[in-house]
Amino acid sequence: MYKYRLVTPGPVAVSERVRRAMAEELIHHRAPGFQPVLRDVREKLKQLFQTRQEVLLLASSGTGAMEACVSNLLSQGERAVVVRAGKFGERWAELCEAYGVRPVCVDVEWGRAVRPEEVQAAFEAAPDARALLVQASETSTGVFHPVRELAEVVHQKPGRMIVVDGISALGVHDLPMDTWGLDALLSGSQKSLGLPPGLAFVALSQIAQAALKESTQPRYYFDLRKELEGQPRGQTAYTPAVSLIVGLREALGVILDEGLPAVFARYERMAGIMRAAVEALGLTLFAPESPSFACTALRVPVGIDGGELVRRLRDVYGVHVGGGQGKVAGKILRIGHMGDVDGFDLLAVVAALEMALIDLGYAARVGEGMRTMTRLLRELSSEKE
Amino acid sequence: MYKYRLVTPGPVAVSERVRRAMAEELIHHRAPGFQPVLRDVREKLKQLFQTRQEVLLLASSGTGAMEACVSNLLSQGERAVVVRAGKFGERWAELCEAYGVRPVCVDVEWGRAVRPEEVQAAFEAAPDARALLVQASETSTGVFHPVRELAEVVHQKPGRMIVVDGISALGVHDLPMDTWGLDALLSGSQKSLGLPPGLAFVALSQIAQAALKESTQPRYYFDLRKELEGQPRGQTAYTPAVSLIVGLREALGVILDEGLPAVFARYERMAGIMRAAVEALGLTLFAPESPSFACTALRVPVGIDGGELVRRLRDVYGVHVGGGQGKVAGKILRIGHMGDVDGFDLLAVVAALEMALIDLGYAARVGEGMRTMTRLLRELSSEKE
Repeated sequence: MYKYRLVTPGPVAVSERVRRAMAEELIHHRAPGFQPVLRDVREKLKQLFQTRQEVLLLASSGTGAMEACVSNLLSQGERAVVVRAGKFGERWAELCEAYGVRPVCVDVEWGRAVRPEEVQAAFEAAPDARALLVQASETSTGVFHPVRELAEVVHQKPGRMIVVDGISALGVHDLPMDTWGLDALLSGSQKSLGLPPGLAFVALSQIAQAALKESTQPRYYFDLRKELEGQPRGQTAYTPAVSLIVGLREALGVILDEGLPAVFARYERMAGIMRAAVEALGLTLFAPESPSFACTALRVPVGIDGGELVRRLRDVYGVHVGGGQGKVAGKILRIGHMGDVDGFDLLAVVAALEMALIDLGYAARVGEGMRTMTRLLRELSSEKE
Repeated sequence: MYKYRLVTPGPVAVSERVRRAMAEELIHHRAPGFQPVLRDVREKLKQLFQTRQEVLLLASSGTGAMEACVSNLLSQGERAVVVRAGKFGERWAELCEAYGVRPVCVDVEWGRAVRPEEVQAAFEAAPDARALLVQASETSTGVFHPVRELAEVVHQKPGRMIVVDGISALGVHDLPMDTWGLDALLSGSQKSLGLPPGLAFVALSQIAQAALKESTQPRYYFDLRKELEGQPRGQTAYTPAVSLIVGLREALGVILDEGLPAVFARYERMAGIMRAAVEALGLTLFAPESPSFACTALRVPVGIDGGELVRRLRDVYGVHVGGGQGKVAGKILRIGHMGDVDGFDLLAVVAALEMALIDLGYAARVGEGMRTMTRLLRELSSEKE
């Protein structure tokens, strides 16, 4: 009755076009035919990152790129301010601990964005802290942190670095790396790029590239010095994930053909429409003040089991949304807007949500979510005509 | 005129069947539909590794799995005997140095296999060494090391571990992990499995699993403790490379349907036929005494530029073989036998080799390589009838 619709905040649905590109016969990464692919991908990644720096490619999930930033930019015994506002903020702190870096945690209530003053206060309490580690979009809560303002706080003291996990934000929110002075910006393939998981990216400012040489941490596979050295020869340090890189070229082409400003505006509108629709259904947003445009997080109504709701949506209606993770497990739903999903796929999500809620005994405002959504989608189309 | 034929010792040509499987719509790694895939893959990997232990999946190239063995099984200041008989033996030593492990190197002339007595002598000189790090097949020289005998030497002292890089050997040579008592066996996706690069595998003996808990190295993405903990719930610690795992199920199915003994016998025969063919052409083998069945290494004739020969084979005849790496750059060729290549593809390699050698002024024994090869291929088919 229902197709499988993948609308978690990642991994996301991969378009037919990208899957076909990846299904072509494999070429060797040292073959002349692969060099133009890699050059093209590198050039386009720079555009996506809005940077003049090289964007390094890693064969790993996004966590590998987070680890690379910690192990390459910080040394044992050093301190780093960590914004801990969700599961991925916790991951920064865990990574610091694994590498003997002392995290100075700014603990933020889940669902709220950090305030620049909170980070400022943390740096005042830890004036020797070398870096701020933060998510742009905290995927576990659906919050977007004020990256631009945080960069300003960090750069009040020269030499301090802001390291930004852009895993679900890059290609969704405007994150101009060079203009905002981000020292490290990282991302993964299975979010806005609409690829399968298995590729990660990191770009480093001049300051971060200098820090690279100072770190005394053990590292090999994620040694970014080697990746930077290989760049002029168009080589990755180890065997790259060739098929994913071939898909990446296709995916980047789609994004850059649409144009970054149009992409960002589309996400902003789609996220706004989704928030309006779920509120019209009678639901409460989990991160109303500073929502990420990559995914919409909403509270599971009191009396409903969130795990049951996620399962019902997925197993009865084919709509695979994200549930809550960590301390909000069972309490929130997260609807992703990235990857190969269109306005009617997202309408299906709202319809399924209404149906599943009624199944579970919740008095949803029948039809209101869909009505709001189609009205706003129609307005958007009219504007474009 | 000529199709692209990928016959390096990895990455290798990926079959249409596997590429189609990977081109299916992406499912989320937490979706119920992915659980049977993962269960199936894990069960089949155990068969491939010939072990009762769990085989852990990493989203990385094979080097990531090598690093995982060093950082999880050894601590700073400890010693490990390293067989350094090629580029990948050098990588073991570099990994040790990166993690403050003191390598005790058994340096072996490139093209020769290590002798068990040499390893025995190294352990006598370093009685506190905790492990032996060795390749099964040293891909850079085309040598197969005597893993079974090395395991016996290692286990003369209880608690010592043998860590085997099976990247181009697993699924090619018989490497029964449990029977031979291998403590860690690792591999990658882009060799005998015939997948694109981006997945790596590690299995650990009970002794290695105990060592895991003792290591004091910093590690996070490659923390095998977390991977082992997630196993009972069917979870990887971080987002897995979903599309490659879907392809892996297909690839493992093909191998296990053929049956491991038949697969090993086929590689042994194919490698033998290739060695006979290149010798009939007048060429000299680089690793005649203990050749790997994964790839055939041969010396570039005196007076011929090896780099030029590789380029000519690839750019004129579409035959992409491996050249020499490191200290044998320009001096050897390596012909891979893994992945989606058949007897006639390998015949094309021999034909192209003859043609390219003549182009470059070498007096090849015209037709002798092909004659030998077709005779031996025909004998093989007759035996099977």
